[in-house]
Amino acid sequence: MKTAEIIATGNELVQGDVVNTNAAHIAGELTRLGVTVPYHTTVGDEVAAIGSAVERALERADFIVVTGGLGPTHDDLTRDAVALAVGRRLVKDEAALAEIEEHFRCRDTKMSALNVRQAMIPEGSDIIPNKTGTAPGFCLAHKNTRIFCLPGVPGEMKRMLEDSVLPRLREAIDTGTIWLCRHVHVFGLSEALVSEKIADMMMPESNPCVGTMVHDGIITLRMTTESQEQGRAELMQEKGEAEIRTLLGKAVYGTDDDTLESVVAALFKKHNKTIATAESCTGGLVANYLTDVPGMSQLLLEGMVTYTLESKSVFLNIPRERIQESGTVNAEIAGMMAQAIREKTGADIGLSVTGVAGPTSQHPGEPVGLVYVAIATPDGVEHKEFHLKGTRKWIKLLAARHALNTLRLRLMSL
Amino acid sequence: MKTAEIIATGNELVQGDVVNTNAAHIAGELTRLGVTVPYHTTVGDEVAAIGSAVERALERADFIVVTGGLGPTHDDLTRDAVALAVGRRLVKDEAALAEIEEHFRCRDTKMSALNVRQAMIPEGSDIIPNKTGTAPGFCLAHKNTRIFCLPGVPGEMKRMLEDSVLPRLREAIDTGTIWLCRHVHVFGLSEALVSEKIADMMMPESNPCVGTMVHDGIITLRMTTESQEQGRAELMQEKGEAEIRTLLGKAVYGTDDDTLESVVAALFKKHNKTIATAESCTGGLVANYLTDVPGMSQLLLEGMVTYTLESKSVFLNIPRERIQESGTVNAEIAGMMAQAIREKTGADIGLSVTGVAGPTSQHPGEPVGLVYVAIATPDGVEHKEFHLKGTRKWIKLLAARHALNTLRLRLMSL
Repeated sequence: MKTAEIIATGNELVQGDVVNTNAAHIAGELTRLGVTVPYHTTVGDEVAAIGSAVERALERADFIVVTGGLGPTHDDLTRDAVALAVGRRLVKDEAALAEIEEHFRCRDTKMSALNVRQAMIPEGSDIIPNKTGTAPGFCLAHKNTRIFCLPGVPGEMKRMLEDSVLPRLREAIDTGTIWLCRHVHVFGLSEALVSEKIADMMMPESNPCVGTMVHDGIITLRMTTESQEQGRAELMQEKGEAEIRTLLGKAVYGTDDDTLESVVAALFKKHNKTIATAESCTGGLVANYLTDVPGMSQLLLEGMVTYTLESKSVFLNIPRERIQESGTVNAEIAGMMAQAIREKTGADIGLSVTGVAGPTSQHPGEPVGLVYVAIATPDGVEHKEFHLKGTRKWIKLLAARHALNTLRLRLMSL
Repeated sequence: MKTAEIIATGNELVQGDVVNTNAAHIAGELTRLGVTVPYHTTVGDEVAAIGSAVERALERADFIVVTGGLGPTHDDLTRDAVALAVGRRLVKDEAALAEIEEHFRCRDTKMSALNVRQAMIPEGSDIIPNKTGTAPGFCLAHKNTRIFCLPGVPGEMKRMLEDSVLPRLREAIDTGTIWLCRHVHVFGLSEALVSEKIADMMMPESNPCVGTMVHDGIITLRMTTESQEQGRAELMQEKGEAEIRTLLGKAVYGTDDDTLESVVAALFKKHNKTIATAESCTGGLVANYLTDVPGMSQLLLEGMVTYTLESKSVFLNIPRERIQESGTVNAEIAGMMAQAIREKTGADIGLSVTGVAGPTSQHPGEPVGLVYVAIATPDGVEHKEFHLKGTRKWIKLLAARHALNTLRLRLMSL
């Protein structure tokens, strides 16, 4: 079995200002490929420290992935350290330079002389293109080890890992074993409950084998299937996903690149329905998620953030007396908001969210975390009540996700 | 200066199932003490791997902190590996055993025979009590190095670090050197340009010494000051920040916990001004940022997401002919949106954002990434034009940040 080492560079990492999430991401991807990753190392922005980590890894690993230190500034030293460790000089790569120049031309921004440093790579290396930033990566072979150097910015690193590094590794490994991986996304159940329901599929000997990850309230099941034959592996994946869907029901909202908002947008398109939103505690986050999906401009007729009492009464015509009597965080007001925005805009569906995001509550009957989501359709109004826990931002995020999920379940029943 | 190394153990870490947050936490605490942490290492649950990491660290560090592998099961191997690395045998610590038994007695739970393993520590070690779990830690001195072994569960580790490890380190160090760290946040300049302007302060020998980090379009300068005297260190920090502000001007928007939105919200409160927003391409993201700050409900009178042409004409009274003539992404429409939302709501300031977030553009004159931000005040309307690059979500994020920054600069000029 091939082995890999991950070396993350950056003073912000060794000094603890930033958590090294890159190593876990890369390790996860390599493990799924069937590569063992016995060591991760983190070092500061020093040529000697980076070089010594690379030299040590060269003694024992088939692959080395280095992240960080490819920027334009004086503390970006990965190029120099790797060149020293493999005994090569740095040369200017004209293609890389052209790409960096193009990056700045597109942005109509002046390129600094420092950026030229980013085109210097160890002789004999290949450039790894960076489509989202200025720092190109590079890879090279030294004795029996292949070294891949990627930027430290997680978004850029992930894209380059997927586009350029993983395909090369797959080719280099080629054990004949097929590894397939699929992500199945779940919302609305606790991780413990999900784990209980799919316990059998989480056993290490299970194939497909499922692991769980939790991120921003979403539970993602990582299903890995191993087989000697592609067709059989694909069939096992399909069967595995079907089994998960049977066990978890409608809580499964999508796979791989699906997001709650992309699934909701697809349902709107499928049923040719329009929507308008009236948000209080989520402050525009639901509209923001919906507009993350290209093409929603045809379907989101209007989003309103009616954050103040005044705006709820003026723009949504909710009688002041009602608000004074019962406050703004209850099923009745949520329903009135959803109906009002629907009528005002002529949308097929009106969605409202009202709640208390905290950190404090103004009214004893409205505790922090109490959230109502209401949906108005031609058939009437329905609402859901949620009791969420956490910081202000976390409650906003969960409330917005629950609003999207409520929309999803309603659209599925059409 | 004393150096420390952090070794985290666990298959879940090296395989990327869990992000190693422990290392960052420990590194942050040690750095604040004035201890340099040149290396973090992560290894799997294997005696050889853990032992080799410990041996290597023994060669070069004054302190070693090991996390994980202290549980009761067969893959908890830190005790064995450390004992081997320092050439000592494992002995049963009666006090530790009594503590573990007490833990189970308190919880009225049967103790497994496996838990006895947790009381085995290298001869000559001291127990580090664990008040919240079953796994006691231990520490020992070997030649000139002190080794601290803590459990991997973050809550238990943090408590034991604070209660038992940091006090011992403080005592052992006592160099008299004070280390202060401050973050200075910058928006609107490229990292290369910032680095050029503050190049002198980025030299390793500079004191304060500055490093850069980039996150979601924000550049954060990490300024570290070293002195033998607290008062002097504080003065140097103040001077350093003042120097950065002189070099970078208004691009500096805050320090430490400040965010663009918290700074903007504070300016609104200071000047007792209200705001209303009309967003097109940012889809509610500006309102969402503003409502991340507690108390903005008094000041954000309304947020509108006028995403469709129809909503711009109906809700913001922008004449259809104008939109048909010149499209919706230009300075004129941005200005009309800002003015309309201001008039409609009676807010002191009206803010609008219109642009093309992509991935495609409908009109040749409106390329993806073209964004206008306009601000309407009693003094009139002003606008800014931006050319942004990236994915749809990235353009939305940058556009929202530029909108907040435009607000900030306008409020500063009041």
